Amino acid sequence: MGKKLTKRSEDYSKWYNELVVKADLAENSGVRGSMVIKPYGYAIWEKMQAQLDRMFKETGHENAYFPLFIPKSYLSREAAHVEGFAKECAVVTHYRLKNAEDGSGVIVDPEAKLEEELIVRPTSETIIWDTYKKWIQSYRDLPVLVNQWANVVRWEMRTRLFLRTAEFLWQEGHTAHATREEAIQEAELMMNIYAEFAEKFMGVPVVKGLKTESERFAGALETYCIEALMQDGKALQAGTSHFLGQNFAKAFDVKFATKEGNQEYVWATSWGVSTRLMGALVMTHSDDNGLVLPPKLAPIQVVIVPIYKGEEQLAAISERVEGVVKDLRDRGVSVKFDNRDTHKPGWKFNEYELKGVPVRLGIGMRDMENQTFEVARRDTLEKQTVAADAVVDHVVGLLEEIQENIYNKALNYRESHITEVNSFEEFKEVLESKGGFLSAHWDGTPETEDKIKELTKATIRCIPLNAREEEGVCVYSGKPSKIRVLFAKAY
Amino acid sequence: MGKKLTKRSEDYSKWYNELVVKADLAENSGVRGSMVIKPYGYAIWEKMQAQLDRMFKETGHENAYFPLFIPKSYLSREAAHVEGFAKECAVVTHYRLKNAEDGSGVIVDPEAKLEEELIVRPTSETIIWDTYKKWIQSYRDLPVLVNQWANVVRWEMRTRLFLRTAEFLWQEGHTAHATREEAIQEAELMMNIYAEFAEKFMGVPVVKGLKTESERFAGALETYCIEALMQDGKALQAGTSHFLGQNFAKAFDVKFATKEGNQEYVWATSWGVSTRLMGALVMTHSDDNGLVLPPKLAPIQVVIVPIYKGEEQLAAISERVEGVVKDLRDRGVSVKFDNRDTHKPGWKFNEYELKGVPVRLGIGMRDMENQTFEVARRDTLEKQTVAADAVVDHVVGLLEEIQENIYNKALNYRESHITEVNSFEEFKEVLESKGGFLSAHWDGTPETEDKIKELTKATIRCIPLNAREEEGVCVYSGKPSKIRVLFAKAY
Ligand SMILES: [Zn+2]
Ligand SMILES: [Zn+2]
Repeated sequence: MGKKLTKRSEDYSKWYNELVVKADLAENSGVRGSMVIKPYGYAIWEKMQAQLDRMFKETGHENAYFPLFIPKSYLSREAAHVEGFAKECAVVTHYRLKNAEDGSGVIVDPEAKLEEELIVRPTSETIIWDTYKKWIQSYRDLPVLVNQWANVVRWEMRTRLFLRTAEFLWQEGHTAHATREEAIQEAELMMNIYAEFAEKFMGVPVVKGLKTESERFAGALETYCIEALMQDGKALQAGTSHFLGQNFAKAFDVKFATKEGNQEYVWATSWGVSTRLMGALVMTHSDDNGLVLPPKLAPIQVVIVPIYKGEEQLAAISERVEGVVKDLRDRGVSVKFDNRDTHKPGWKFNEYELKGVPVRLGIGMRDMENQTFEVARRDTLEKQTVAADAVVDHVVGLLEEIQENIYNKALNYRESHITEVNSFEEFKEVLESKGGFLSAHWDGTPETEDKIKELTKATIRCIPLNAREEEGVCVYSGKPSKIRVLFAKAY
Repeated sequence: MGKKLTKRSEDYSKWYNELVVKADLAENSGVRGSMVIKPYGYAIWEKMQAQLDRMFKETGHENAYFPLFIPKSYLSREAAHVEGFAKECAVVTHYRLKNAEDGSGVIVDPEAKLEEELIVRPTSETIIWDTYKKWIQSYRDLPVLVNQWANVVRWEMRTRLFLRTAEFLWQEGHTAHATREEAIQEAELMMNIYAEFAEKFMGVPVVKGLKTESERFAGALETYCIEALMQDGKALQAGTSHFLGQNFAKAFDVKFATKEGNQEYVWATSWGVSTRLMGALVMTHSDDNGLVLPPKLAPIQVVIVPIYKGEEQLAAISERVEGVVKDLRDRGVSVKFDNRDTHKPGWKFNEYELKGVPVRLGIGMRDMENQTFEVARRDTLEKQTVAADAVVDHVVGLLEEIQENIYNKALNYRESHITEVNSFEEFKEVLESKGGFLSAHWDGTPETEDKIKELTKATIRCIPLNAREEEGVCVYSGKPSKIRVLFAKAY
């Protein structure tokens, strides 16, 4: 099998890399920095997509599709934006290949050079605002509430499956509004939707907050974010929602006629989550035996494994199992009955443990006699014998319990890893010994932020929205501060 | 409004281009050859995707995701394949931009040149078979039944919304099998699924057939296709399914251990449909007033338009309408109650006609008194007065009737536009006067096929699967032939 995992305590990073591959979520491809998302991993992403898409549509958003390619001149229109993305752009320069004259193979045809280079979208603000110019003339055309599911490319030198890849999948919402207030409300709404999705579906507790100026999206006036904490004490940014002010409207000259007949620039937001969420999901819940998946996103919620010798026993077991499968499906539970005779029960137990299937039902001849099932839950690895006629209700309840339990476990971990620190010594000590979020006073300057990053590798993850005012002094500079921010080392 | 359409009889091509834009399906972008799919158009595509995805999964396929970029050397491995795609490849050569030293703006950084160029996928056989090499060792790993929803790029000089665009959205299935027979069965299965989808959901009748050698997919041994006929008498290839033999397995050295322990090359298929289907949908059913959508793919199946003066009348109508909306939704019908006071009823009638909403309910004060609704169907433009308490049942029935009617109408058109021709004179005359499919004997050579194309612009759309043997002579060369094939001018 070769499926034995490195332990988290030995090498957390190696554990993660192995787990993603061994659990059939994703693997590296022959293209530097680009991953293959395997069917099992993609099935989880599809469940995420379906739920997010539902939440977007319930709040009035529609999907659309914009070009993959962005003319270089578009990207350059908003100064901060191009500054932020220029260093990681994949550039299309030619549109044809041809046979080399020396017969050495296929080469780029030098005569098929584009007049203007095309950038493979790293994000779509520019091409979308170029389009919105055609869509928006009057206040009657507002708001525009559009989302796109797409692939984007940001050239990265050091990549890791799901966490940082040259190409990734995401959704990007791009909205246009008549007023500043409405745009800010939209940005906050989407942050809240992301937080609700992370907590209720992924079982990942998050802190909602604002990014500091240096961590903001290139072109935004304000970036809202949700920050999660992984089991190794490092933070992970799980979603961002940007208030873009009128920056892109000005860059692309998008004005609208107000009710009063004035011409004003349109207000904008953009917001996105990506396949990075898959990394957050894996790192939040999984253990040394493999994945632990929240029932609400598990492609298979329940697996049933028969323990038998010979056709006759399998036939008897199958008959009993059939009704349970049907009843569970009627209750909306996804079930797999793994009756393959090519693999032993023990192999199957390990396999579904590795793949994080929330509930496993085992049934052998003793269970047949006693009219029971053995019920094993993945999160706690506990086993229990349950009467056959109660097993459907039991499993349905158990799935809810697991969903809640893994969230609470992650929440307890997170809560016990937010540490208030009041000096730079303490800051460094806690960061190295315990990790997690450090709640510390900061003087509000990018210089101090940079210096702390340089000395400790910790960055300001966010200024939490629920932070209360408190007189204090910056842990680094000693200058006065009115609010604690959250520092952490981050993915 | 400026929404008045060119008539089909005046200029079919102009009618199509205008309709796609005016009905808010898609528009050209600032990127040459790339379109923006607008929310209304995308909503139809989403319905197509959802249904196709269901049909793929019901037949055992899973989704996955493979890289957008293909190393140039991969594309070159299968000789026919690279030959077929080399002329339309978008090529990434650099991975960074930088500020020009003369301050003139952002330029491609010459130091960030890729060692090997990357091709933006025109199709994914090569990158996928490079991956399958890792997935497949033994007969136990087969079949692999994987599909991908993705964007692809084929550089086109002359583009048209949906029909031919540089970037388009599609799905591509890529399967691997232990035997030749199984792969052929898979290719046929998927052609049948495409045909079922086209006929039952899009309401578009199709001919199933095989492509001739010169029209085959680059790298395939056999290409199955479904061919539809548009209202102007031109054919449109709506989907293809390829039997790839062992070509890609050999190019990427993908072998498997058989049950008997031998090493054999794997057998392959690939199959795809794209946003081109949107073009087929528009061109098959729509009329001079705008879109006609099949109820099964219409984003809004029923629109209700109130005809009223003042708040009070609207309130009374709204109350009556509310129950109908709820009852229709309970029956699974998507309904929009357009109670906007910014637009007049007449404007709304035109708008929903243009957008192809299958059923429109009108209700004014006379209907309120008489307890009726005015029911208008989009396909025939007929109106009818229906008692309020019968309207829900009536509408549900009507939606089915419309779905059937537009299919039958398209089928009648298609059937009356397959013409048997027996001489080249007749061939040319029917092609120019009536158009449609010409059922003609052909000597089986690519030379004759080419010559006919050169002289008439008609190509062999397919060798129909249901063709019966018949002694005859080639319409062009006079050589003997045993089967009639279908010629047509095509999109
Ligand atoms: Zn700890
Ligand atoms: Zn005709």
